[in-house]
Amino acid sequence: MRYLLTISYDGSDFFGFQRQKDLLTIQGELEKVLSTILQEDIQIVSSGRTDAKVHALGQVAHFDTSKEIKDLDKFVYSVNSMINKAISILSIQEVPGDFHARYSSKEKTYLYKIFLSKGNEPLKRKYYHICSYNLDIDKMQQACKKFLGEHDFTSFCVNNEQLKSNVREIYDIHLEVKNEGKEIDLYVTGNGFLHNMVRSIAGTLIDVGRGRFDIEDIDRIFAEKNHQKAGKTLDGCGLYLVKVIYK
Amino acid sequence: MRYLLTISYDGSDFFGFQRQKDLLTIQGELEKVLSTILQEDIQIVSSGRTDAKVHALGQVAHFDTSKEIKDLDKFVYSVNSMINKAISILSIQEVPGDFHARYSSKEKTYLYKIFLSKGNEPLKRKYYHICSYNLDIDKMQQACKKFLGEHDFTSFCVNNEQLKSNVREIYDIHLEVKNEGKEIDLYVTGNGFLHNMVRSIAGTLIDVGRGRFDIEDIDRIFAEKNHQKAGKTLDGCGLYLVKVIYK
Repeated sequence: MRYLLTISYDGSDFFGFQRQKDLLTIQGELEKVLSTILQEDIQIVSSGRTDAKVHALGQVAHFDTSKEIKDLDKFVYSVNSMINKAISILSIQEVPGDFHARYSSKEKTYLYKIFLSKGNEPLKRKYYHICSYNLDIDKMQQACKKFLGEHDFTSFCVNNEQLKSNVREIYDIHLEVKNEGKEIDLYVTGNGFLHNMVRSIAGTLIDVGRGRFDIEDIDRIFAEKNHQKAGKTLDGCGLYLVKVIYK
Repeated sequence: MRYLLTISYDGSDFFGFQRQKDLLTIQGELEKVLSTILQEDIQIVSSGRTDAKVHALGQVAHFDTSKEIKDLDKFVYSVNSMINKAISILSIQEVPGDFHARYSSKEKTYLYKIFLSKGNEPLKRKYYHICSYNLDIDKMQQACKKFLGEHDFTSFCVNNEQLKSNVREIYDIHLEVKNEGKEIDLYVTGNGFLHNMVRSIAGTLIDVGRGRFDIEDIDRIFAEKNHQKAGKTLDGCGLYLVKVIYK
């Protein structure tokens, strides 16, 4: 039987999603509890890894088990009672054996949260990128449009030799300004994301907002296919995997 | 010279405000940085201790130094650059030598944050009390009025033999419901607070909201002068010291 989990987590204290020997990871904690409850060795496959300190509101993962889980609500309750409280199972459902949390996905949405402040912001520091610059939000909104559609995102990712192509399509990218202009939520939806891609786009948009780049510089950065030309890759703590949509 | 600091902190990782040997405390971190910058042994006096995991939006403390701090903004910037990022100095000002962060205070406001959810709430667990009960908010609002004015709060505090009196006056207490009813903010303003008093009031209000107590039970609990009769003392992580007002 194959089951699909929807998961939320606070990534602050984890060394990322992927299991690593002797380090606290989301995958490691999940597999430990699932294996205990199901009394067999469970390995999960996620829609994609998230880096250290990155959060999730709706990460998705599947796993196979020889057991049938009869009461799904009770199973969710049991996992949540036993697991590290920085992780929460939101739901579980049975899926066909050919469903794959990674390869069956067609769309993902990420959120990058920015908080404008010149101070330390103790209560926000693990959940936002704290930005001390004054930003031109209108210019950033316009710059967002440059990322829409199909592009080679080589300049906006950390190089990964294994990938055949760095072409991805962005379906939607926009900013939501909240909290009297102090909070900026960047939402990005696309068919797939390269390593550090949202964090690199977010850093580049901040550089537009503070006047280091013009809107047109984004065309140039795309064309140069060089990550060094993009804005700073922002910290993981501001990033949230919001949801994964499947075929 | 005596200076007054206004301070914000995320109490999650600290063993409370008060300095303790070999433990991470707000006072310890502050004194370490102030002593380094001012090149003399600085000891701070706060408006009152906060317990482990309790946060502050506007804690106040004073300290004495033989040095004159000429550029106050620059001093704040220096402290914030050097200090543990879970702490932020919001402001500093010079005060008269007879000003005392604790004894000169006439009013304090606390906030206790409650989040209604049956799940683990990974991203909220360090900043709210997570409450899985369905609550009757109207009844809780009415119950708040029972705490207004001057009372002996013996039933709503952890016993402290050193205090002459457990009589305190509450000037304002009310609930603010946010986020489609999922978030309840309890604000309490009074002339002084006993140990665990807000956390005990919050727990008692939840017991009213879930039907374990009637509104009239609060009169009875006050009269019994016994902490065991009150509702559960809620966890520190939901509590915030909002502000301290001085004479």
